[in-house]
Amino acid sequence: MSIASSSTSHPSNGTDDIRGTGDIGATSATGATDGVQGPARPRAATVLRPLALSDVQLKDGLWLDRQRANRDVSLPDGLRQLHDAGNLRNFEIAAGRAEGDVLGPVFADSDVYKWLEAAAWEYGREPDDALLAEQLRITELVAAAQQPDGYLNTVVPVREGRRYGHPERDHEHYCAGHLIQAAVAQKRATGRDDLLDVAIGVADHLVREFGPRSATGAAGDVDGHPVIETALAELYRETGRREYLDLAAWFVDARGHRTLERFGGNSTYLSDRVPVRDATTVEGHAVRAVYLAAGAADVAIETSDSALLAALARQYEHMSQTKQYVTGGLGSRWDGEAFGDPYELPSDRAYAETCAAIGAVQWAWRMLLATGEASYADQIERLLFNGFLAGVSLHGGEYFYVNPLQVRHDAHADDERTPKNGRLRWFGCACCPPNIMRTLSSLGGYLATSTPGGVQLHQYVPGIIRATTDAGDVELDVTTRYPWEGHVRIAVKSAPAGPITIALRMPQWAEGATLDGAHATAGDYARVTRAFMSGDELELVLPIAPRLTRPHKRVDAVRGSLAVERGPLVYAFERADQPEDVVLDDVAVDAGSLRESDAPGLVPGLVGVSLRTHEGATLTGIPYFAWANRGADDMRVWLPEV
Amino acid sequence: MSIASSSTSHPSNGTDDIRGTGDIGATSATGATDGVQGPARPRAATVLRPLALSDVQLKDGLWLDRQRANRDVSLPDGLRQLHDAGNLRNFEIAAGRAEGDVLGPVFADSDVYKWLEAAAWEYGREPDDALLAEQLRITELVAAAQQPDGYLNTVVPVREGRRYGHPERDHEHYCAGHLIQAAVAQKRATGRDDLLDVAIGVADHLVREFGPRSATGAAGDVDGHPVIETALAELYRETGRREYLDLAAWFVDARGHRTLERFGGNSTYLSDRVPVRDATTVEGHAVRAVYLAAGAADVAIETSDSALLAALARQYEHMSQTKQYVTGGLGSRWDGEAFGDPYELPSDRAYAETCAAIGAVQWAWRMLLATGEASYADQIERLLFNGFLAGVSLHGGEYFYVNPLQVRHDAHADDERTPKNGRLRWFGCACCPPNIMRTLSSLGGYLATSTPGGVQLHQYVPGIIRATTDAGDVELDVTTRYPWEGHVRIAVKSAPAGPITIALRMPQWAEGATLDGAHATAGDYARVTRAFMSGDELELVLPIAPRLTRPHKRVDAVRGSLAVERGPLVYAFERADQPEDVVLDDVAVDAGSLRESDAPGLVPGLVGVSLRTHEGATLTGIPYFAWANRGADDMRVWLPEV
Repeated sequence: MSIASSSTSHPSNGTDDIRGTGDIGATSATGATDGVQGPARPRAATVLRPLALSDVQLKDGLWLDRQRANRDVSLPDGLRQLHDAGNLRNFEIAAGRAEGDVLGPVFADSDVYKWLEAAAWEYGREPDDALLAEQLRITELVAAAQQPDGYLNTVVPVREGRRYGHPERDHEHYCAGHLIQAAVAQKRATGRDDLLDVAIGVADHLVREFGPRSATGAAGDVDGHPVIETALAELYRETGRREYLDLAAWFVDARGHRTLERFGGNSTYLSDRVPVRDATTVEGHAVRAVYLAAGAADVAIETSDSALLAALARQYEHMSQTKQYVTGGLGSRWDGEAFGDPYELPSDRAYAETCAAIGAVQWAWRMLLATGEASYADQIERLLFNGFLAGVSLHGGEYFYVNPLQVRHDAHADDERTPKNGRLRWFGCACCPPNIMRTLSSLGGYLATSTPGGVQLHQYVPGIIRATTDAGDVELDVTTRYPWEGHVRIAVKSAPAGPITIALRMPQWAEGATLDGAHATAGDYARVTRAFMSGDELELVLPIAPRLTRPHKRVDAVRGSLAVERGPLVYAFERADQPEDVVLDDVAVDAGSLRESDAPGLVPGLVGVSLRTHEGATLTGIPYFAWANRGADDMRVWLPEV
Repeated sequence: MSIASSSTSHPSNGTDDIRGTGDIGATSATGATDGVQGPARPRAATVLRPLALSDVQLKDGLWLDRQRANRDVSLPDGLRQLHDAGNLRNFEIAAGRAEGDVLGPVFADSDVYKWLEAAAWEYGREPDDALLAEQLRITELVAAAQQPDGYLNTVVPVREGRRYGHPERDHEHYCAGHLIQAAVAQKRATGRDDLLDVAIGVADHLVREFGPRSATGAAGDVDGHPVIETALAELYRETGRREYLDLAAWFVDARGHRTLERFGGNSTYLSDRVPVRDATTVEGHAVRAVYLAAGAADVAIETSDSALLAALARQYEHMSQTKQYVTGGLGSRWDGEAFGDPYELPSDRAYAETCAAIGAVQWAWRMLLATGEASYADQIERLLFNGFLAGVSLHGGEYFYVNPLQVRHDAHADDERTPKNGRLRWFGCACCPPNIMRTLSSLGGYLATSTPGGVQLHQYVPGIIRATTDAGDVELDVTTRYPWEGHVRIAVKSAPAGPITIALRMPQWAEGATLDGAHATAGDYARVTRAFMSGDELELVLPIAPRLTRPHKRVDAVRGSLAVERGPLVYAFERADQPEDVVLDDVAVDAGSLRESDAPGLVPGLVGVSLRTHEGATLTGIPYFAWANRGADDMRVWLPEV
């Protein structure tokens, strides 16, 4: 349900003024202050407009704690890992400053770029000279590795002996895409052009070699791993140079024609079987699929392509209804790291790669900006609190690549990605850790938006939110213990003289929510339109009692089982919290016994849940994101029902 | 339960005389006539002794029909496929008779050898000049491709530029093993030494290069894919040359020490993580694991190694109780074609490779010979009638590589192995088709055994069975419509003057079975010991009404569901047999409604089953082995219960 079409649910709601024609592009693209801009900032008008990253300042709570761990532990440790694994040395070799074998996977460069992007957003969040110096040191090294014509990859020319010989496996556009994203972040967060100059060199090289303006005309290939699409769209946004957008659009349309089969690639795996605008679902490698969709959404937004946007909306809906775990996790197959068939959602062998959750947040965010549909903000919430956040330890230095919903007692771990091995400090394929870092450091960009007529709060995080409306600037101070408690107090710090609309997302699960004491419809935005004055307050109460979730009848893998959710959190039952004689593999629980309960204080404010087994034992659940912070042992999200 | 320890269940049962000491090797290894000997013929004494292949002659029924399709369709079509896919041309190239690129997977040679083995056993079953000529033509080609020192592989030296450089992937011992197995079959079935001479050359080369008598002392590696172990044991049996058995034993003991990790191999996948005698379960690639176990059983038998045999018995039991589908299928993961964790048995993503069922038959057969335990014969029956036989079409010319227990309506097929694609005439990796062929042509070898004191019928197939006992020869004529009906009439055609024991396996499911009207205990052998005269008959009645099977509570994938079995057959509910408006993905059935029913006459005598859904529709089930003979569409073995 979109903001524009929503039934008004609050007594003081007026008619929202955010959409003139009901179509994309009806509003101005501006709407943020001149502060540090965050990721995915459309140039074209969208229904909702992102706020500046510097206009969303977290005060305290779960997410700020995660951001601090990200800054204090993840970023410095990640840099050490990139050094130790050889990723940085690869650049030294390419720059002629060192000799030896290039190390790591073919896409090793991208992990350095993701770290650079994370460091840039983090600098934007909270400037620090040392953090800037570190970025610029690595930026200089990256620049030194660039070839005169703009091409930049430290591994492929060495391993393959040539460029672009194996687009199905070599990730050359993928690495270029992450470089461009990092460069845009550095520009926005630090104002510096150092990496942007390198990225423009890479992008100009791509424009010459691929797509509609290709000089050779021969290089009609798409890359095996999407990400270049959204990267080029962002570079277009930053530079205003249309050729980058054109190339992004060309890559989107060139996909789905099985061209990668020429190289022996599997077109399903590579998102190359069905053109994006014809696809009705997502398939193949989950991360590739959602990155492609995010890039296609960028193209749809910037080219006002409503048909493409509608196709993406169809795909998102089919994905969320048939191929997504309750945790938000995406990709049910280890085989090919892939989406399964509809309703193929095993708990034990869920792949649910952390990167897929991140890509889905990016896709959902773009869809939210383009459509204003509350369901996309619901998706972002589910993804962030569960499938994404489970991917990093509370300490910040250990990660999960794979995020299953069940770990059996006798599970055998023969793969470093297996959670049974416990969280790892790094991986041979280390895509997830720096992807988590850049997401956490740019998190503020995904929480709220503005329109000419008002401000929208999509996620409830304690903090200060500033937005620009046509009537003038507004500043809100959000106070809440969410997700542990359901009360959210929104205090107006400053507001324009005329009326504006403050829109608050009511999560789909929030039946019975109230805004200033009046009913607010779940799954929609509750809006208050009036002139606000400093000191005004809105009081939102979300019903946050634990609730039971039962699977769709086609999900054979968890038939007869239930999951527990509380607010936006999915719960997990981990070995460490159960009575010693309970074997999680064998439990069956009494649905009527669900209660809130004490649980280990893994994070401040944590609320546990409990269920009784048929044998009378009491099981304790903690939020899924917090599991495996005391070793990794038996765990279940879905519990068989008595 | 072993024959020796079984409680007697028939009034005329005496004490069985087959086991002197209760240990392996208590009886003579002989016991078959001088006819055509079948596969896996121990030289050492075993509790049970195989019969000659020529002493088990099928008269009619399901299995003879399958053997005829195998001869008339599978074998000739398989030869065409080996020609078209380049496998035979690879030998011509290696022999210097053709030029060009070698084609196919690195183990392409093995498919030719498996075809040769199939053709040999088929010739032994029913001699035919053309079939012999074809074998000898290919044998000559194979011999011409052998290198002077005995090494023989048409692909590896070309692709890798050297021998044994990558044992974790190159399958050189694997191909040698299949060559040896084919040679032994050719010798036993045709009496010719043509291929045996080649195989001895290969084996002598292996003895020089590997193991205890290795000349180099350096080549301590095991092959990534077991099969050489059982092959060398068989060659020892055929030639009497102890060095082959020693090398087989050495390969068994050399495994499990992670030596293949030196080459980057995954030791779990390659059955190289835990020494065979220490392992408590099977893990990793399912086909590799069961082939290794079969070879280890051969070594245990020939070296009277009761500790090794006990380890294998433990592993078999753990496999059958925690990692086997109701169809007998083995290997629940597409990822790595591997065994899953205990109770990880999804229906939709079951891999259950046809070759794994075949390898398990081989392993179970050796365990049966060594121990006389009825459970192994039960296993062979379950495997043959279900997980194995589903791998080939009734016509005989189309195959399944993968044998799931559920195909969803919306399943997407992006892999040639996916049953949703329908049965295929061949595969890029074509291990299964010729493996099926050799199993069907040698099937007679797995049905009955003898001891000094009598004869044992493990499987009920209409036919003539001849056996040699210490008292003299015995000939039985078995008449039955099994598996469609439960009556089995065993007529004595000739018997020695003194008493012998006729032992009949009572399947585990056969509660209420009678032998000559008296109760016979399920899961054990019913034995009749007396002097028999020509014309005597035994009348066995197995209770063959359809029955419900419910999963172990730890099998999350099919919780709340039931399967239907009838006699040895597992049933499948296929789209083609259901009312048009029934969506198999959505059904729930009333367990009390189970009946026998009419069903399509896909094979003579076929008996269907029916169940009512909660909405009153009637579902019809056919034997699982017969599914996908009218296209491949939605199918389920496990049905949710109302």
